[in-house]
Amino acid sequence: MSLNDMMAGLEPSRQGGLFDGIRKVVPYTPGEQPKGLDRIIKLNTNECPYSPSPRVMEVLAGIDGDLLRRYPSPDNEPLLSALSEYYGLDKKMIFTGVGSDDVLSMCFLTFFNSGRPVLFPDITYSFYDVWADVYRLPYKTLILDDDFRIDPTDYSVSNGGIVIANPNAPTGVSLDLDKIEYIVSHSRDSVVIVDEAYIDFGGESALPLLERHENLIVVRTMSKSRALAGLRVGYAFGNERLIKYLCDVKFSVNSYTLSHPAIRGAVAALEDDEYFKSVIGRIQSTRKAAEEALSSMGFVFNESKANFIFVKHERMDGATLYEALRERGIFVRHFNKERISDYLRITIGTDEEMDSLFSALKEILP
Amino acid sequence: MSLNDMMAGLEPSRQGGLFDGIRKVVPYTPGEQPKGLDRIIKLNTNECPYSPSPRVMEVLAGIDGDLLRRYPSPDNEPLLSALSEYYGLDKKMIFTGVGSDDVLSMCFLTFFNSGRPVLFPDITYSFYDVWADVYRLPYKTLILDDDFRIDPTDYSVSNGGIVIANPNAPTGVSLDLDKIEYIVSHSRDSVVIVDEAYIDFGGESALPLLERHENLIVVRTMSKSRALAGLRVGYAFGNERLIKYLCDVKFSVNSYTLSHPAIRGAVAALEDDEYFKSVIGRIQSTRKAAEEALSSMGFVFNESKANFIFVKHERMDGATLYEALRERGIFVRHFNKERISDYLRITIGTDEEMDSLFSALKEILP
Repeated sequence: MSLNDMMAGLEPSRQGGLFDGIRKVVPYTPGEQPKGLDRIIKLNTNECPYSPSPRVMEVLAGIDGDLLRRYPSPDNEPLLSALSEYYGLDKKMIFTGVGSDDVLSMCFLTFFNSGRPVLFPDITYSFYDVWADVYRLPYKTLILDDDFRIDPTDYSVSNGGIVIANPNAPTGVSLDLDKIEYIVSHSRDSVVIVDEAYIDFGGESALPLLERHENLIVVRTMSKSRALAGLRVGYAFGNERLIKYLCDVKFSVNSYTLSHPAIRGAVAALEDDEYFKSVIGRIQSTRKAAEEALSSMGFVFNESKANFIFVKHERMDGATLYEALRERGIFVRHFNKERISDYLRITIGTDEEMDSLFSALKEILP
Repeated sequence: MSLNDMMAGLEPSRQGGLFDGIRKVVPYTPGEQPKGLDRIIKLNTNECPYSPSPRVMEVLAGIDGDLLRRYPSPDNEPLLSALSEYYGLDKKMIFTGVGSDDVLSMCFLTFFNSGRPVLFPDITYSFYDVWADVYRLPYKTLILDDDFRIDPTDYSVSNGGIVIANPNAPTGVSLDLDKIEYIVSHSRDSVVIVDEAYIDFGGESALPLLERHENLIVVRTMSKSRALAGLRVGYAFGNERLIKYLCDVKFSVNSYTLSHPAIRGAVAALEDDEYFKSVIGRIQSTRKAAEEALSSMGFVFNESKANFIFVKHERMDGATLYEALRERGIFVRHFNKERISDYLRITIGTDEEMDSLFSALKEILP
């Protein structure tokens, strides 16, 4: 049959139009990644101001072609073993993915299909409602109090899952472990995810709760405290059965998610714990100094347990401040969203970067 | 409120049990990645037997900490620009992801939601039905003829999308471009994906059809012909509107999918076209020699346009051959599946690896 013969017989069935079967969504908007990084100060995506452990770059430099031409281990070994050893948890309790966003996305896809609404705070990581939408899961947001605090009893209602960021983003507010446990205990029939992207900078991890709660998943990332945003590595902990279901879904989406450089670089970062701790110490110390400086300039904020501070000024609104800083080459994050439009989320940079920020603010503020 | 007070009030609502809201799936089974690679010959996952361009490793060695600590470009630049230049297509027509599996998975999630069945051949890449299952999409498989060939008129029925691997896996059989165009033309109301994972080894690409068919998506990978299975890079081409919808879904799942090493390594591979062509030439020449050798040993097969051959022996079944080779440290792929359980899929290795295979087969065959 020639092409012309075939075309002559062309009679497409017009069932619904090409664009009818398409999943249409409003995606998450990540923080700007502006060009010309040398000249600007970037305090808008909670990246670590310091490089990762030098061992990571050594490992990347040692990767050879015979490794690269082969598929990685489908279970992301040797990273899985390194995480197991570092955290003292069985490999069957660990899941790994392409940043914690990939891990959280897989958790939404796997765990939240009961038809009941997924619960999370009204002010939190703005990707949660996006995942609910893309996977067509019902959800309900619960209002934080005026100090951006969670009332755990709000969550003791029928639900199809719960997601709590601790410390919360963008507020930096942390939730005590007994309140986390209250929430987990009162929703035994659904999976409760504690998103600990910022836990290394302060706050109390929910990891110890794993041994007595089978419905708990704890999610972590290497993008912030381990300075590996550019390597894309995240992971989760949970009981064996939940992790098995999560792995089944992951293996139904992509057999090989982490590249050899990501796997090996992540292992190297875990091995250099001394470096990791020194970076955390420096950021905590800069955060403390920043809290004092910002406070003296008339900013108000809750105590932050993360690598950012969520601030509001007494006499100037968030959008104006954001724009004025941007004009001076300083990028912070502003959310044009109810209840928080007066706030800025400022990532903790180096001491020098913070000094530039304070100088700029002194120029800007009335 | 103390933890004890809170626990006293614990009264969980038993709606449906923890495991009821979980998406339960049977995942794809990737080919084995056996340990002790030095001693075995691995012809089971269609990896390239040669290393990637040396420029890739140079680039990885040059990655510094200040890059790694930052998020990559959300649109995977500079890879997007490099692909645009290499293929002469606008950046708005290109999508990138974590291997072609990630790209295909995103396509299933984005394009196939009409409620009508997705169509693909009964013998093809065994991930297609897994993606349909995990995203709960109806599908229907259409029977290939006894020579594993597609009849394009089979696909001119009401459908919610079509996926054709060309050349097909695991058969290696390629479909003429006029037949691809027949299929695309007769399903204008649904998206037709042509999975060209193996197209660089032979066969005719559907890329030229893009300018006259708005419902076509062409998917590629760097895992095979560019020897980068371990870097996890795939991409797709389509018209601007389809790619925009695909990007929206991607940005609703994970903002940053490719790591800096993956992006930069992939660009380096594209830049070294001379190396790429020499690798393709070597594999095609080894494939030709292998076809002659296998034929002389009593194997039958269709002409392969891929980097593997799908063979059946006149006097010995596939499972027995697979096991006998495995005992000798040679891994090939056997599918325990109707119609093809007598076949082996043998990846084209180096000439030396193929000689070892032939020696082993001579020992094994009656």
